[in-house]
Amino acid sequence: MPDFHAYAATSAKGILEPYSFDPGELGPEEVEIKVSHCGICHSDLSMLDNDWGMSAYPFVPGHEVAGTVVAVGENAKGLKVGQRVGVGWTASSCLSCHECLSGDHNLCAQGQGTIVGRHGGFADRIRVQWTWARPLPEALSSEKTGPLLCGGVTVFNPFVAFDIQPTARVGVIGIGGLGHMALQFANKWGCEVHAFTTSDSKTEEAKKLGAHYVHNTKQPDTLKKLAGSLDLIISTINVPLDVPGLLGTLAPKGRLHVVGAVLEPLQLGAFDLIMGQKVISGSPTGSPVTIDKMLEFSARHSIAPITETFPMSKVNDALEHLRAGKARYRIVLVNDHAE
Amino acid sequence: MPDFHAYAATSAKGILEPYSFDPGELGPEEVEIKVSHCGICHSDLSMLDNDWGMSAYPFVPGHEVAGTVVAVGENAKGLKVGQRVGVGWTASSCLSCHECLSGDHNLCAQGQGTIVGRHGGFADRIRVQWTWARPLPEALSSEKTGPLLCGGVTVFNPFVAFDIQPTARVGVIGIGGLGHMALQFANKWGCEVHAFTTSDSKTEEAKKLGAHYVHNTKQPDTLKKLAGSLDLIISTINVPLDVPGLLGTLAPKGRLHVVGAVLEPLQLGAFDLIMGQKVISGSPTGSPVTIDKMLEFSARHSIAPITETFPMSKVNDALEHLRAGKARYRIVLVNDHAE
Repeated sequence: MPDFHAYAATSAKGILEPYSFDPGELGPEEVEIKVSHCGICHSDLSMLDNDWGMSAYPFVPGHEVAGTVVAVGENAKGLKVGQRVGVGWTASSCLSCHECLSGDHNLCAQGQGTIVGRHGGFADRIRVQWTWARPLPEALSSEKTGPLLCGGVTVFNPFVAFDIQPTARVGVIGIGGLGHMALQFANKWGCEVHAFTTSDSKTEEAKKLGAHYVHNTKQPDTLKKLAGSLDLIISTINVPLDVPGLLGTLAPKGRLHVVGAVLEPLQLGAFDLIMGQKVISGSPTGSPVTIDKMLEFSARHSIAPITETFPMSKVNDALEHLRAGKARYRIVLVNDHAE
Repeated sequence: MPDFHAYAATSAKGILEPYSFDPGELGPEEVEIKVSHCGICHSDLSMLDNDWGMSAYPFVPGHEVAGTVVAVGENAKGLKVGQRVGVGWTASSCLSCHECLSGDHNLCAQGQGTIVGRHGGFADRIRVQWTWARPLPEALSSEKTGPLLCGGVTVFNPFVAFDIQPTARVGVIGIGGLGHMALQFANKWGCEVHAFTTSDSKTEEAKKLGAHYVHNTKQPDTLKKLAGSLDLIISTINVPLDVPGLLGTLAPKGRLHVVGAVLEPLQLGAFDLIMGQKVISGSPTGSPVTIDKMLEFSARHSIAPITETFPMSKVNDALEHLRAGKARYRIVLVNDHAE
């Protein structure tokens, strides 16, 4: 087996440098994928910077992979060499716990993240358990698919997991990498879509993406005017939330769902939940089946992230662009490694 | 119409004194009930003390009423004079909003509490909208029924509202007025029942009430030992909760459900919800149909609160007993008003 050619940081917040490594024998449950594209997610930065205290160095980011299967382990199921596949946040799960056997592989306690203790997709090749390499519908381009596989399924998952009906009124907080996909999903799901932003400059784009209403949360009384109206709010931001204010915008039985990894504590009163039987919940990415549903739904409805591309060899420029808050909306690295 | 003879406080935290008033004409949607028994709920004290800032004086507490219909308004449906009925927290709802029309009358924004701007059941008679006077199964005694109608349905409601399966592992926090009924419901629902208490003295009683396991949360590591195991926790207490610790005891997709009106803020991290797709929710009492289901279920399974009775004329002694934390577990006033 030839070495893998990746880009790795040797310490937290470090520059990525070319890094070759011998991946060893292909595991029996693994497939090897030649990476054509890899999206950059904000959590690649969080992991690069060791914000969550679980990064290992040398660290190879990248968990929004599109590519082609080039090798299949002896026990790997359902995949063939030459097949186009995508990989998201998760690279492996135990397959035998109650969560895996219930189809909730994304909640497996033994699950391994693609970049948690493993080398990710900023590389010419990557290996993952067969379960997590999902076949891509023909209608989806590899460039557009990467961001769907992590950010996309993260905001799609609540619609499936909580049986959201097309009659629902859905709010999306934050019109960024995740939010701009959430607006499209909510719109095509048939819902009344409310975008929440702190920047008036995003109003027109949010409407193009599917928002029927755009609310600037910096305006006083924005939340009060929506009192009791929304069935689901998906929060994609990682800055502190006005939880009581947001719960106030929910209709009875409404749900505030958090997918943005905000580090500051959420704070709320018991009465905010009790009156109106309201819910706060959170979720990570999605199961293999939810990823497949998301991919099919995206293909059918032409849902796609707005992307900017960089050659993978310019990965540090791309990361700087993301750090500077300039990404509109998802950056995708195009593999330019010479064979 | 003769005056109603009640017990009222004229100011917050005041002593209750005999108080007669003319209830006026019976409303077309109302029924009048001759009160035989009325439970005392902790929220009667909270309202008496104006803890929630919504009490009006003279204030007549009492929202766990059992009695007999003595008059039926011209538009009141489904009830007859002489029928034995019970009344809980809610006395009226609009009947025409989406919540009422969906069967969630308990979430009606126009709903009126039995003791919020109305005179409650510490009286010889009470009037409520017909919707909220629920016929009592013969097998339930009037003494035991009162506490089921508020505290009981409050802890029964989550089982119905969230489709809890009998295979679930259910925790109950606080073995008091609400918790001692929650243990019985959870056990008869078929669940594995975990009682959480801070007092070892309650261990044997909790087991008699249906707990398969009793955990003392004052012991270190109690919550850690339960990591990832519970599907539902119902918190009945009104003192601060260790929300992150409790979320840690939940299995993936588990729910921490709050019915105890704790005034201190709940505080948690987004990651506590995101990893494991967990939920925090709350709810008030239950709908008319949920009350009926709870009454039938209680009758079928001989579920009943443990009660202490006081003559209604000794209501101040009864309230003092509750304030002192001595109630084991629910106090019921027996109407001793001379006809």
